[in-house]
Amino acid sequence: MHYFSFKKNNLYCENIKVQDLAAKFGTPVYIYSSRTILEHFIKLRDAFKKLKPLICYSVKANSNLSILKLLTSAGAGLDIVSGGELYRAKRVRCPGEKIVYASVGKTDKEIKDAINYGIFAFNVESIPELERIAVIAESLKKKVKVALRLNPDVEGDTHAYITTGKKETKFGMDIQTVKKIFLNRGDYPYLKIEGLHMHIGSQITKAAPFVKAIKKAKELLSELKKRNIKLKYINIGGGLGIVYDKERPQTAKEFASKIIPLLSGLKLKLVLEPGRFIVGNAGILAAKVIYIKRTPKKKFVVVDAAMNDLARPSLYEAYHRIVPVTKLKVKKDRKLADVVGPICESGDFLGKSRKLDVNKGQIIAVMGTGAYGFSMSSNYNSRPRAAEVLVKNKKAYLIRKRENYKDLIKKELLI
Amino acid sequence: MHYFSFKKNNLYCENIKVQDLAAKFGTPVYIYSSRTILEHFIKLRDAFKKLKPLICYSVKANSNLSILKLLTSAGAGLDIVSGGELYRAKRVRCPGEKIVYASVGKTDKEIKDAINYGIFAFNVESIPELERIAVIAESLKKKVKVALRLNPDVEGDTHAYITTGKKETKFGMDIQTVKKIFLNRGDYPYLKIEGLHMHIGSQITKAAPFVKAIKKAKELLSELKKRNIKLKYINIGGGLGIVYDKERPQTAKEFASKIIPLLSGLKLKLVLEPGRFIVGNAGILAAKVIYIKRTPKKKFVVVDAAMNDLARPSLYEAYHRIVPVTKLKVKKDRKLADVVGPICESGDFLGKSRKLDVNKGQIIAVMGTGAYGFSMSSNYNSRPRAAEVLVKNKKAYLIRKRENYKDLIKKELLI
Repeated sequence: MHYFSFKKNNLYCENIKVQDLAAKFGTPVYIYSSRTILEHFIKLRDAFKKLKPLICYSVKANSNLSILKLLTSAGAGLDIVSGGELYRAKRVRCPGEKIVYASVGKTDKEIKDAINYGIFAFNVESIPELERIAVIAESLKKKVKVALRLNPDVEGDTHAYITTGKKETKFGMDIQTVKKIFLNRGDYPYLKIEGLHMHIGSQITKAAPFVKAIKKAKELLSELKKRNIKLKYINIGGGLGIVYDKERPQTAKEFASKIIPLLSGLKLKLVLEPGRFIVGNAGILAAKVIYIKRTPKKKFVVVDAAMNDLARPSLYEAYHRIVPVTKLKVKKDRKLADVVGPICESGDFLGKSRKLDVNKGQIIAVMGTGAYGFSMSSNYNSRPRAAEVLVKNKKAYLIRKRENYKDLIKKELLI
Repeated sequence: MHYFSFKKNNLYCENIKVQDLAAKFGTPVYIYSSRTILEHFIKLRDAFKKLKPLICYSVKANSNLSILKLLTSAGAGLDIVSGGELYRAKRVRCPGEKIVYASVGKTDKEIKDAINYGIFAFNVESIPELERIAVIAESLKKKVKVALRLNPDVEGDTHAYITTGKKETKFGMDIQTVKKIFLNRGDYPYLKIEGLHMHIGSQITKAAPFVKAIKKAKELLSELKKRNIKLKYINIGGGLGIVYDKERPQTAKEFASKIIPLLSGLKLKLVLEPGRFIVGNAGILAAKVIYIKRTPKKKFVVVDAAMNDLARPSLYEAYHRIVPVTKLKVKKDRKLADVVGPICESGDFLGKSRKLDVNKGQIIAVMGTGAYGFSMSSNYNSRPRAAEVLVKNKKAYLIRKRENYKDLIKKELLI
């Protein structure tokens, strides 16, 4: 579900023509639909209503301040993974008690800043980290809440780079380690070790891996209960898949219908960490066709967006639908097209072998790029990063200015 | 060859301890050796001395202004691929006549700026681009030099993403097309179509693919000669491989000894476009160990540099040697280590299954990261980008300041 649709041959973001946005803000430009973002959030919230979950939006998916603000204003908390994301959370005045913080590499400074801001909980990924937080908490004389991240060793059935719940990955702790820490939680007087956290991966389209992981967690919880260790919350992470191509991912409702029965009896607060599910389909990358290049072997649609703007096709071999934003009368072509950017490597493509009949100068949209689009972008080939635009209440707002050449060198010192 | 070496258990960059640089400038930090950079340049220049080549350093490999300045001061020209790189070239006052410009997606503005700066030549990648340059040249009433980029359809024998000389790639034009343009070059009164360009890929360790490509070019040249079409220069691109692991790449001398005999009779000016060859081994990424994490399955060395700082391992499955910068007495460990960053995906690794015995707090160096290191870095996970330091004449200079949290949001508008 999203609010990008064609009316009379024109692609609209909500009620505004994408063509007009591209003309106004230039290309390449990321365009987001606030209505889509909010509806995704509400769908998830409503689906889990019974458990009154804390829904912490995963900042890394799209960390633009205006998007964070949009979500926190609607009641969302934030799932952060770095000091930079904590800084962003502060900038949008997200209450500390709605922030959870995961990462295998939290530094002392990051831990200290997060404690001082009074975050809801750290999702702790290792014993050395747990001990570090304990030391820092003691030095600050503050009681700090932590959840232990359990690595349930389940297969997320997704790209290897975004599978995070297998025991070979760097994430979380095995069930024996987690159990041991809970049993000895008295050893950490400055830590309130009251939560269990899991996050098994990203772009997972079925409930089965979640169910499997939660069942493992429940076994642990019941063992702990027998030893009189009671927890206060369970965080089942994010990872809900969306439609990029022909996926048929579970809806929020379907997901909840499988998960709620598992959790109902536990009397634990539920935390969710959706990212892609909220913003993935809520954004597009609009780009202009610079050249149509034909070779004896292939047709290339060369556009002004590149792998520096959108890394996913190159990095994960991810598929994104690509459409012209205005359906012009274009000569039909039997040749399929590779949609490529100006960057000087073969890895620079946005789509391969696509049916795409466009002319030079036309605007195309790379769909479903709201998550892990701008947030992964770089200045490779000395390309200024794109602008970001948010459509909200029938108006379009520039929420991040396009970089210029001067920005590229701002931090450099010429010796 | 490079000037990073161990003396008494300490890794030095030229005459300065890397440990001291990490302490002074913080981590993660890119550290470059100017002596290494210059010697690579000189080696290549001397190897091709007989042909008095124009050596255009490939800016995209490492585009820091101070590195560009170092090379242009030594006589190098620049190989650019975007308006942003032209801007950089201007900032270091690189003479226009030493700049070549390749890219499949040059925009009108980029073409205009480059013509106005009086660059040596465009490397033209398609007929539509050639026609665009002709139109813009005419509108500016300037005669513009262009080389035609020939796609010789040879296998570079490297990673698919950095192979650029196969006919399936987006680069250059096939030999028939190139020939046709040369034969009809009179049709473009504002273009001086006098050069032939090739670039077959990156990290190519043997001369054979170059030889093969040049032989194809020579056939074309002799055909053209018969039709009384004479050219002025040939640009054989870059792509010389370096040592990352156990490669035994050709030296500049070996390369030249294979190439010079092929080119000697042609009476053409030679242009070379080395990037990685010049800076690849001239840089390291220094990072601090945050945690040593042990799981039943694996050992993880968690450091404060991540895939946002160095994309190559994740993107190309590239190997970089990783060493502690101080050889401390550390408990030997039979378990191999994955060296990973704090970023929340399994694709975030710098090295896998390494013999690396280090303690928390120790500094490690990721070797051979002078090329395609910083230039590909991003702010993913809201991580400020690293600092860059250049060692030159026994002193260390900060050539790019570390980003801070404020920098992350500077272009954002909170609505």
